[in-house]
Order: sequence, then structure tokens, then C-alpha cells
Amino acid sequence: MIDDRFLYERISRRLLEQIGAGTFAVGQKLPSVRRMSALFKVSVNTVMQSYRHLEAEGYLDIRPQSGVYVRSSDVHDIPEPDGSRYPLLPVEVSLSEQVLQYMELHADPAMVRLGIALPGPEVLPVDRVMATLRDVTRHHALEAWDYMHPNGCPLFTHHLARRSLSYPVPVTAEDIIVTSGAMEALSLALRSVSRPGDTVAVESPTYYGALLLLETHQRKVVEVPTHARHGISLSALEQVFRRGGVAACLVSPNAQNPLGFTMSLERKAALVALSERYQVPLIENDVWGDTVYGEEAAAPAKAFDRAGLVLYCSSFSKSLMPGLRIGWAAAGRFQKRFRELKQLSTITSTSISQIAMGRLLESGFYAQHLRELRERLHDQVNAMAKEVRRCFPPGTRLTRPTGGCVLWVRLPGGVDTVALFQRAAARGVHVFPGGVFSLDGKHADYLRLNAGSPLTPPVRRALRWLGETAAELAAAGPRREA
Amino acid sequence: MIDDRFLYERISRRLLEQIGAGTFAVGQKLPSVRRMSALFKVSVNTVMQSYRHLEAEGYLDIRPQSGVYVRSSDVHDIPEPDGSRYPLLPVEVSLSEQVLQYMELHADPAMVRLGIALPGPEVLPVDRVMATLRDVTRHHALEAWDYMHPNGCPLFTHHLARRSLSYPVPVTAEDIIVTSGAMEALSLALRSVSRPGDTVAVESPTYYGALLLLETHQRKVVEVPTHARHGISLSALEQVFRRGGVAACLVSPNAQNPLGFTMSLERKAALVALSERYQVPLIENDVWGDTVYGEEAAAPAKAFDRAGLVLYCSSFSKSLMPGLRIGWAAAGRFQKRFRELKQLSTITSTSISQIAMGRLLESGFYAQHLRELRERLHDQVNAMAKEVRRCFPPGTRLTRPTGGCVLWVRLPGGVDTVALFQRAAARGVHVFPGGVFSLDGKHADYLRLNAGSPLTPPVRRALRWLGETAAELAAAGPRREA
Repeated sequence: MIDDRFLYERISRRLLEQIGAGTFAVGQKLPSVRRMSALFKVSVNTVMQSYRHLEAEGYLDIRPQSGVYVRSSDVHDIPEPDGSRYPLLPVEVSLSEQVLQYMELHADPAMVRLGIALPGPEVLPVDRVMATLRDVTRHHALEAWDYMHPNGCPLFTHHLARRSLSYPVPVTAEDIIVTSGAMEALSLALRSVSRPGDTVAVESPTYYGALLLLETHQRKVVEVPTHARHGISLSALEQVFRRGGVAACLVSPNAQNPLGFTMSLERKAALVALSERYQVPLIENDVWGDTVYGEEAAAPAKAFDRAGLVLYCSSFSKSLMPGLRIGWAAAGRFQKRFRELKQLSTITSTSISQIAMGRLLESGFYAQHLRELRERLHDQVNAMAKEVRRCFPPGTRLTRPTGGCVLWVRLPGGVDTVALFQRAAARGVHVFPGGVFSLDGKHADYLRLNAGSPLTPPVRRALRWLGETAAELAAAGPRREA
Repeated sequence: MIDDRFLYERISRRLLEQIGAGTFAVGQKLPSVRRMSALFKVSVNTVMQSYRHLEAEGYLDIRPQSGVYVRSSDVHDIPEPDGSRYPLLPVEVSLSEQVLQYMELHADPAMVRLGIALPGPEVLPVDRVMATLRDVTRHHALEAWDYMHPNGCPLFTHHLARRSLSYPVPVTAEDIIVTSGAMEALSLALRSVSRPGDTVAVESPTYYGALLLLETHQRKVVEVPTHARHGISLSALEQVFRRGGVAACLVSPNAQNPLGFTMSLERKAALVALSERYQVPLIENDVWGDTVYGEEAAAPAKAFDRAGLVLYCSSFSKSLMPGLRIGWAAAGRFQKRFRELKQLSTITSTSISQIAMGRLLESGFYAQHLRELRERLHDQVNAMAKEVRRCFPPGTRLTRPTGGCVLWVRLPGGVDTVALFQRAAARGVHVFPGGVFSLDGKHADYLRLNAGSPLTPPVRRALRWLGETAAELAAAGPRREA
């Protein structure tokens, strides 16, 4: 099955490259299915699968009785990473304490919430989770009262493991350790495989929380250029690994925050192979994995982890309820150390949350909810993207996410988005400036927008205002506000 | 008020020293109140306060119309720390991974639970907490769903702060950061004031979790001799501070685990003064503070922290419900760093637990519950102590705790209690060997027993069996089993 997906993905990617390069222009007709089948030496079905996939992604029109036409060449809307800004050398992280202030605005319920990357309560089954929690207080009172087993609630870990059954390398319940959210998992994973002063390779841009984590643990960072559609550059990463001196690599192959890409299965497998060849542990942040758009769940890089080098980290904060503070990890060959660190970090994680999650998985509710969630997030992201294209100044570029609920927006005119953040905050709109997603201001003219909630009139007004203000700032020329 | 308590405590301690030294034997009459008042130059009331206190602790009998008589001289049942075993030099912690195995048995519900230090569900208001959690799911669903404010739920921190109103230096809501249990608080406090390779002074014996924490964070340790009734030796601590090179001191002045002492207010103030004089931060683990026996809540060392050098850590795991995973810290002048570390450890702590705790404090229920809890724990500890004296071999010595629910028991004959632990585990009885509460086997012949639950027939049987087995092991002579 995986091999089939590889084939159609390979063809899709090849086609997209050609479309992006202008080989096939918008409106132009593509070769027939039969012709493609001969060209690529694959079955007619595989070609059709690829065409249908690209149609679903908005690139192609399949017109019955006529043929397949290019609909959009908007393939690489976010520019390729600028290689000259990536020396691939270890540097110390020193992100200002402002980041924590950027985060804090989320606590103000009066804000228009475009800052924190988080689906809103409108698209998450708040009532059902609350009902389940109530049920746990009634029927599992003693279990909820007590410390949970150090590895986690067995019902919960058992059902977590089940979800990996179709992976080439499944995860078993014994591999799993429940954590207090994905942040604890990432922190413990980092500490399981590295020490202060060590260097860790990361995607660039990457989740600011990961950079802060590395800073706070005195790790150095090598930023690896990362493509807005394909993910981390494997050739650059190999160059870094080959040179040596890297203790770990922190990646987020599914619906990455902020870029929204999902690496193909082929590239995930190649990433794991690279980690294995150079014996560099991979810390996989899969907190957005369950939100990758589409019918089927997206496999993580962990699915290919034969050598036990992947420390998988995830949570339910982005797909169900952040307040539960429940995440989990499968730390491969580092599990013993990971578990020791977990017990000395928070001993165990909240019992009621774990039992409730176990029940939501067991009943099939969570899987059913995800199908709906992905569709709604996809719609919301598309709606917001449309609005941004309409309201923001010419030259604005933005991602086409494959999961999650954030848009990564590059403003024209070299605007420092901290200025925009500050003005927006004063107006009751919370957005996240892009500069903290990498070092040395590489993304200082980017903005991350959360499309976790429907496009209500206040959100539309906020977007219009942001667009106008971005235009004003661009007109004033490149500068940094204090 | 504090000065008055100092006076009566000073007199009580002086009397206890005399009783312990045999100056007044059991059955003997003490000087009259009037005579004592003249001797110590204090009011008659203060002497009466002291006599009543010692009567409540079981040392004196006050017989109306007759006088005050010594009832028990069992004052220093646990021997004084052996100074020759305390070089007061930094050493690396290396406690075996067995400790985590010792802890794990707690997860087996079939065990007789004498291992983990924890009041049982019989003495904690499980139903009321569950009802409150249910209430939160109904009336605060959105708040419970979301990430909580990074510092914690305002209702909760506000009521936490209120409890310190009578302290010489009260804590304000702004000083507080909610954590995922006390372990996270201790871990963040440690990281806020020290770095790998630094040295931390600790009580000896001390909670094994603290030693493991120091090990896992690569801190060195100076063990300071600690008296079973008076607490850490302030003169030895000053010697350590004076020599320099100590980054912090980790103490537990209230109902310390495992010794069960509560430092007098005077000694707490002196401890804080010492920290201030030498500018060494104090990390105060007050997780047992709410269980100190008596009508009034015991003030922590933090109550005297004018200089902001005390990093106070507590939780509700030992006084209400461990499964909540809710603790809190007041990190004084280190609060900014502490908060940064907290956000990169678990971001925020479980929302539903915080809101529920806020409500239980607000309604006065928690305070009311504590009064009952202290009484029941005191009774249970006394009942278990009586049973141990009855069932254990001659020469067994044990503490007379002032709070909490553990007994610290020294077996005769140089028995290594790991052997007892192993035999007990095989028999379905969970106890904790004493060796892991200090380094170099100083307490290898000690055993910690949890008296958190009533003395049911299975517990009585377990104690009888433990006593018999301890006698067998003692008869077999000193040895260590693998």
C-alpha cells in the first residue's frame, strides 16, 4: 500500500514541479492518462490517482470527455528558502523574552484570536469531552483520584498504539509514555538524547516553542532550510549530519507549524534513513499530525523507525482540547531514560484527562471527530487565505497548508511584523510575528495567522485592518519598530 | 503573635531536652507553673501553653489539683545523626534505577500500600472533589477546554495567596505560578537557580525524589545532618554556606518526609536568615505543610522571606488528590526565570484541576477538610506506631511525626531493608527501603511506612509479617541481599 502511495505521490510531485516551473501554464491541457501511464511506466490507475489528488488540491481541473487542465500554478507561493542565509553552522539561540509576551495575549478572551495556533472551540467537541470527563468522575473516581501508572493509563496507551497498526513499524503500548502535553514530551526527548552545549538541527522556520526550548536548555542550533511544500532539505541535513557534532534533529513532518507542509511518505522514510545512517536521533513533533487534511490519517516519520532512533512526541491540544494537558511520546531506544526524566519532571500526568482520552479513543469518537475537524480546518484555512489575498497589499505571499490551521504570510516591502503585532495588540487583535520562528531575522517580514475559528465578522474586520496596516507599513519602507 | 509562639516553643524544647536526657524521668513531677514562670522569666500563660502542648504531644500528664508529670521520655527515639558520616563535601548523586521500581509497585492496586507516602482515599474527600470537577465541566466548559493563563487560574492563585495573609511576609497572587504538581515546581526551582555541575545542600535523610532530581540534573549534593525532631542542623548548614560554592539549599521544614519533624518558627526564621546572610537560595518543598497536626496551619520558611530568596513549592497531592497533578510555586526574585522554564516545560497546567481547586479553596471546603485530615492522619500514624512497637523486634526505633503520614523506622541488627522490601513485594506488601533517602547507605537499615490509610486487618497482618521478617533478618546478621 505504501509503495502505491509512493508512486502516485512521486508523479504528483513531478507534475507540480513542472507546473511551478511553467512547463504547463494555467489553462493548458496535460498529457492523457494513457500517455502518462506509458511515460512513467505506471498503471493507468496510478496516474488517475495522481490527477485526482492534484484536482483535490486545486491545481487541476478534470473535465470529463475533454481532458485534464492546469487550474493554478500557485505552487510555490512562499519563496524558496534563501540558501545564502543558511551557513549550516551551530549558533546559540537567544530569542527575546518578548516571545512569552506574544504568547500571553492568548489569555485575554477579548482578543480576536489570530495569534496562538489552535483550532477554536467552535470546531472542537467541547461538550462531548466535558460529558466524558463527568462520566470519569462518576465511574472511575478512585482511578482519577490516584497517581496514574508512570507510563500512563493502560486503556489510553493501548488505543494510542492501535492507531499505528498499519505503519511499517507499529508502536506498541509498552513503547508509550504519557506526558503533560507535547511540550513536556519534547523537553524530555531533548534531554534524553543531548546535554547542555550540544547542537540540534532544526527546520527553518520552525515552531518558536522549539527554539525557546533549545535556548532554555542551552543547546546550540543548526537551522536547515525548509521548503514550504516539501519540508526540510534532506541534502542540507545530510551535509550537517556528515560534518558531525549534531546530537539530534528536531522535525515536524506533518502539517508543520508554521509552514503547513506535510512531507511525503517517501521523504519521511528518507529522513529516518538519514538519521539511521548517521546515528542521529530524530525528535518528531507530531502535534499537528491528526489534522492533516484528507480521509486517511497521515503516518509520521516514526512509522519507518526500525532502529528506534525516532523520539515521537504528540498531544491532543491541537485536535481536541488544550486544557487537558495530555500528550504522549514513544522514545524508541531512549525510552528508559525518557521515563526516568518524566517521573522527575511531573511524576505522572493528570489522571482524569488520561482516562477520558482512553474512552474517547475506545469509543471511536475521536477518529470520527477528526474526519470532521480536518474538513472544517481545511475550509477555514482556505477561507482565510482567500480573505488575505483580497485584503493584503500586492506582493503578499502565503502558504497553502496541507493540515493544521495556520497561514504563514510574507508581507511585501520588508516590513518588520513586530510593528504590526504591536499595533494589532493595541486594537484587540492577537497575531504572531514571524521573526521568532527562526534566528537572525530570517522571517522578520512574516506573520502567522491562526485560522482555527470560522471567519466571523470580527475576524474579517481584523483581517481587513491588518491588510490596510501592512500596506501602510510597507509604504513607509523597511524599518524596525522598538 | 509569632514572638509568643517562639517563647512557648523555646520552653517546650528545653523541657524535652531535659526529659530526653533523663533530668526528669517518666512518672516524675515537673516544677510548678509559677516556679517555671520565674525560672524562664515568662508569663504563667506561656508556661501553661508549653505544658499543654507537651501534653498534646503525649509527653506530659496534667493532673488537676496535683501537678504536671512526665508521661513519656521517648523523645529522641530515632538516634541523633552520626556526625562522622557527614563530611559536608559535595558528592555526585548516583541512586540506582531501582528507586523507580520501588515507586512503580504503587500502581498495583492489589498491594498493601505502605510504600508511597500518601494519605489514602479513605481520608480524602474523593466524592466532593469529583462533584466539583463535574461542576466545572458544566459551568466552566470553555475555560476548562482552553490553555489556562501561564501563571495559573486567577481564582486559584488569588485564594492561594490569601492563605498567607498572616505571614510576616505574605505571598501575593502575582508571586504565584501554578505547576503540574510539586515535582515540576521543584524541578523548575532547581533549574531557576543552578546549573549542571553546581552543588546543592540537602537535609539527610531527605525525600528520594529530591535526590533523583539532583542526579538527573547533574547537580552535586552536600548532605547536612538533620535531626528527627528539630530538622536540618543550622550550624552544619552555616559551615557549608560559609565555605561557599553552594548554589542552593533544598529543605522541607514542615512535616518532613521521611522524618516527620516540623521546624519551629524560630528555626525557620533562622534558616531564612542564614540563606539571606550567605545569599544562597532556599528551595522549600512544602508538600506536607497542610498536614502538620494541630488546629492552625503551619507557616513555611517562605513566611519569613523578606529577600525573595525562598523558592516555595507545594501541591495538593498529599492533602487532597494526587491525580489532579496541581502544584504551585512562589519563586521570589527568581520568578521571571521560573515562569519561562514553566512555559517550556508544560506550557500551562491542567485547566479543570486548577478551576476545581480554586472553587474548593473559595468555598472554605479545603480548610475545613484539612482540620479533619490532620486529626485522622495523626490518629493513623499513632495507631501504626503502636503496632510497630508491638510487632517489630526489640531495638526497633521510630519517629514521632508532627505531620504527614509516614513512620521512619530503624531496624535493629544492621538489616539492609532492600531485602525486606523484596520479600514484602513478593508477598503483596509495598514498603519503601530507607537507603535511597540519603547517600552512602547511611540509612540502609531504615524503612519508611505509609500510615495514610486506616489500620485495617490486611495492614495489621502486613505489619505483623514485616516485624517477624525484620526479626529473622536481624537474627541472620548484617548483610545485603542482591
